[in-house]
Amino acid sequence: MRNVAIVGIGMIKFGELWTKSLRDLCVEAAQNCFTDAGTNRVDSLTIGCMSSGLFNGQEHLASMVPDYLGLKHVPATRVESACASGGLAVRSAFIEVASGFTDFALAIGVEKMTDVSVNDATFALASAADQDFEAFHGITFPGLYAMLARAHMDRFGTTREQLAQVAVKNHANSTMIADPLRLLDCSPITDGAAAVLLTTVEEAKKMKKYPVVEITGIGMGTDTIALSHRRDILKLDAVDLGVQRALKMAEKTINNIDFAEVHDCFTIAEIMVLESLGVVKQGQGGPATMDGLTALNGKFPVNPSGGLKAKGHPVGASGVAQICEIVEQLRNNAGKRQIAEARTALAQNMGGSGGSCVCHVVERR
Amino acid sequence: MRNVAIVGIGMIKFGELWTKSLRDLCVEAAQNCFTDAGTNRVDSLTIGCMSSGLFNGQEHLASMVPDYLGLKHVPATRVESACASGGLAVRSAFIEVASGFTDFALAIGVEKMTDVSVNDATFALASAADQDFEAFHGITFPGLYAMLARAHMDRFGTTREQLAQVAVKNHANSTMIADPLRLLDCSPITDGAAAVLLTTVEEAKKMKKYPVVEITGIGMGTDTIALSHRRDILKLDAVDLGVQRALKMAEKTINNIDFAEVHDCFTIAEIMVLESLGVVKQGQGGPATMDGLTALNGKFPVNPSGGLKAKGHPVGASGVAQICEIVEQLRNNAGKRQIAEARTALAQNMGGSGGSCVCHVVERR
Repeated sequence: MRNVAIVGIGMIKFGELWTKSLRDLCVEAAQNCFTDAGTNRVDSLTIGCMSSGLFNGQEHLASMVPDYLGLKHVPATRVESACASGGLAVRSAFIEVASGFTDFALAIGVEKMTDVSVNDATFALASAADQDFEAFHGITFPGLYAMLARAHMDRFGTTREQLAQVAVKNHANSTMIADPLRLLDCSPITDGAAAVLLTTVEEAKKMKKYPVVEITGIGMGTDTIALSHRRDILKLDAVDLGVQRALKMAEKTINNIDFAEVHDCFTIAEIMVLESLGVVKQGQGGPATMDGLTALNGKFPVNPSGGLKAKGHPVGASGVAQICEIVEQLRNNAGKRQIAEARTALAQNMGGSGGSCVCHVVERR
Repeated sequence: MRNVAIVGIGMIKFGELWTKSLRDLCVEAAQNCFTDAGTNRVDSLTIGCMSSGLFNGQEHLASMVPDYLGLKHVPATRVESACASGGLAVRSAFIEVASGFTDFALAIGVEKMTDVSVNDATFALASAADQDFEAFHGITFPGLYAMLARAHMDRFGTTREQLAQVAVKNHANSTMIADPLRLLDCSPITDGAAAVLLTTVEEAKKMKKYPVVEITGIGMGTDTIALSHRRDILKLDAVDLGVQRALKMAEKTINNIDFAEVHDCFTIAEIMVLESLGVVKQGQGGPATMDGLTALNGKFPVNPSGGLKAKGHPVGASGVAQICEIVEQLRNNAGKRQIAEARTALAQNMGGSGGSCVCHVVERR
């Protein structure tokens, strides 16, 4: 396998983007990525999107997106693993480059969620759960994560104040980059897109615009799609495996990680992921959050970007947006939310109630 | 890159499978594949499915399918490129193995289309076209392909009899494998699944159960999603590129190909693809079909399986099912529809009205 670097990142501001179409979001994120990279060379394209069928009546993004990027003859793959679709797009782009199949691979994450009613959006999101055994019976994701939170409170004494602290911390980070009121008003049902351009480390060295940022580890894990089938409702096996596999590939332990972008779709998720990463013992995610461990100036900063909670969660885009934030940090370009001397970071992106998880270790060379 | 072989194939009989769920289809095809391979080792999984969100209210197959295969911790990716989703799943599995990321990769194609009304199925299928500029205005795929057929008839004098001959030939092939009446009654809206297991040629040689069948070429091309944006309505650029790239990678020309499985979603599609492959000059696909060129005993047999037309087209499954048929032929296992001395074959699988195309060259070693 060849070594793979990230040479470009591009985001658009997440929000309720009623004046823009799904294709606009993809094109803008990609154009920002090309500007950042100083090249628009793309040999293959991966698009992470959870449910453009249900949100936009539009499948076949593997044709539409290259078409509207002026790349209509380039091989393209849309990948999906619910809210982990963005991370999966980066993983797929990595493998395209690592295999030698492609030299420059563009990964885009996108979701346009506000074109449908809240009821329809709730149905679409619930399609990440087990339709036959969970969603059909009326439960939605707030309900699934509420069960996790209740079990965590019951078993470990985690408090509502500790949960709230995750949100407080993440919103505090996010206010440093944009109007806090708009962000705090932001619905978790969000439109957005993000893009990263990958190539070999060898090619990246020639580009010289930025320090070389390499993806050194990738790990993916899966777990039962239905929460009721888990061996323990408070164990996120897919996250455990995703993180362990990524760290192993990168020849690192969690102690080598300077900060992480994690999947805080609900406050309880960040607390459980923190425990899954091995940053704290199980049950200690709540108190550690209260103590400031994961704050920007804490010992293990989590979600310097504001996370999904504070910057919005356009599901297919989130995993790619995590990588964009990590690259900004590793380039020492993150302004007021910069983490001092950050060299090695972890991205953790998961689908549904933890049925799938994709992790990346990213290092500044 | 490492060389990649197909060591297992598994299909289920396509049809209106009202007593089976989406997950059942995947599990049965995979189990048939494991039985065929003599192993159930899977290090990563790719699932090609166009629109389980719209057909089944179920996304996140990358969690559900490994879960129900007893593989719940294995990395899994759902890929989508409309009707080319199956071919894309094989391509993704190929890259997983070729890169060294994975030793044994299972690719499953699946679509469960009969759980919704015909109206809803038509809406779901139309999401492979451009929603904003085509589908929203009322056109569906029969309409899009009808425009192609009309243009082909107008420019080259292709006749309705020639179109019909594609169907006659494909149904004739298919009647050799199953009850012809049921097949002839078969709606193009079909439930089905197919699976292939890939590993390195090195591993395949150790298995000894079958002659080694290697994927030597992969090509993917994309084109405008909207038919109206094409440079020429009768040019399938994505097919041209997919075929050329696959042949180039395999170091072959079309003259080295013994037979092909092609994407005959409509009769005109097979005629146009035949021209795109370079088997006949443009405009000659109709007369060549009448002359028997593509019949089972013709000079260039096309769709010995019966193709999409005669065996049904569960969209995400079709591209994988093509590979299953090719492997049966190359193993000399195809019974009454066996093509004598077949050693090198081409699979051509496309999405929408030709907005994307994935091709594979497969060879018996």
